[in-house]
Amino acid sequence: MDNKGILIVVSGFSGSGKGTLMKVLLDAYDNYALSISATTRQPRAGEVEGVHYFYRSNEEFEKMIAKDELIEYARYVNNYYGTPRDYVEEQLNSGKDVILEIEIQGALKVKKKYPETLLLFVTPPDAATLERRLVGRGTETPEVIRSRMLRAAQEADGMDAYDYLIINDDIEACRDEVHRIIQSEHHRCSRNVEFMDQIKAELKANLKGEL
Amino acid sequence: MDNKGILIVVSGFSGSGKGTLMKVLLDAYDNYALSISATTRQPRAGEVEGVHYFYRSNEEFEKMIAKDELIEYARYVNNYYGTPRDYVEEQLNSGKDVILEIEIQGALKVKKKYPETLLLFVTPPDAATLERRLVGRGTETPEVIRSRMLRAAQEADGMDAYDYLIINDDIEACRDEVHRIIQSEHHRCSRNVEFMDQIKAELKANLKGEL
Repeated sequence: MDNKGILIVVSGFSGSGKGTLMKVLLDAYDNYALSISATTRQPRAGEVEGVHYFYRSNEEFEKMIAKDELIEYARYVNNYYGTPRDYVEEQLNSGKDVILEIEIQGALKVKKKYPETLLLFVTPPDAATLERRLVGRGTETPEVIRSRMLRAAQEADGMDAYDYLIINDDIEACRDEVHRIIQSEHHRCSRNVEFMDQIKAELKANLKGEL
Repeated sequence: MDNKGILIVVSGFSGSGKGTLMKVLLDAYDNYALSISATTRQPRAGEVEGVHYFYRSNEEFEKMIAKDELIEYARYVNNYYGTPRDYVEEQLNSGKDVILEIEIQGALKVKKKYPETLLLFVTPPDAATLERRLVGRGTETPEVIRSRMLRAAQEADGMDAYDYLIINDDIEACRDEVHRIIQSEHHRCSRNVEFMDQIKAELKANLKGEL
């Protein structure tokens, strides 16, 4: 099979558990690299520069846009979020599957630019579970929870544009499911053009003059 | 997740081992049903009516065509081969994944008629392995082997139209790979419209009047 990494976009409702899911996936399997986004939003408690995000000023971010150093970027709640290109391409070329954890707006931009991108949408099994998880965090005000539920209802309309639906009920089962889905994608014909060209050439060489 | 079976077409070069692969897949997992084709060709030694094929006369076969009782049919080496519709639809509705083992001409017709069909192409790792397997069977004349290699070279041009490439090197590893690929496909957004509609409706009901 061809040895190219797959660019993967993971999105999902706030409260879907996609952050934890990505963490356990990367802990369990060594063939993934998580892309680190750049953002203009303030770090939350415990977040570290270069680990969770690259924190940039508005001016710095707009310079990156102008130099085409981002494969996608979007504004969300008055802040910029974007994906620096260099790191992603480096990892893909080395055969790693690179995961971007971005929201739907950015996901669709990446898919348009790189049609071979794999889009995964993480969702809890139902809306009640989503609300329970947001409340359970204990870090958000009721207004923020309400606004996230409102946003989820809007984002749900975009689910259809994704390739796979990841129903996050049991985190470990879900982690292994995501792994199987991504590894299965490596067998897509469209991702194995080199292998196919090779066997076509061999078959034709074998029968030279008869075709 | 939605509980509909997936219609799967498996094709591959003669000598790719696809027949054995399907046999071990059905032996190992109980969520698959193999479609039985109708054909006008003569039974080979050991083949049984209703197990390997439904053997039909030319007149009978053409009556099935006229009554639209086949989801696809094709002529190959002067014989008809086709897939009776009833059995396939029955199995899909019961949640089974139904496998059609047909050649490329029929595969493309099925995909056109049922775009949600999953097309798998089985290939040995290289052309030399293919020829070795055909010779190793010991049941074919050199002329037949040559004609199968010629046909393989022609069929190879159609590989790109398939969804997944199944490289049959180790039969058991390959069997499990096929199982993972098919089961991953059950997570496709396009195959889970009911689930998505459900969670969208829940999220909207929850926020009635705010959207």
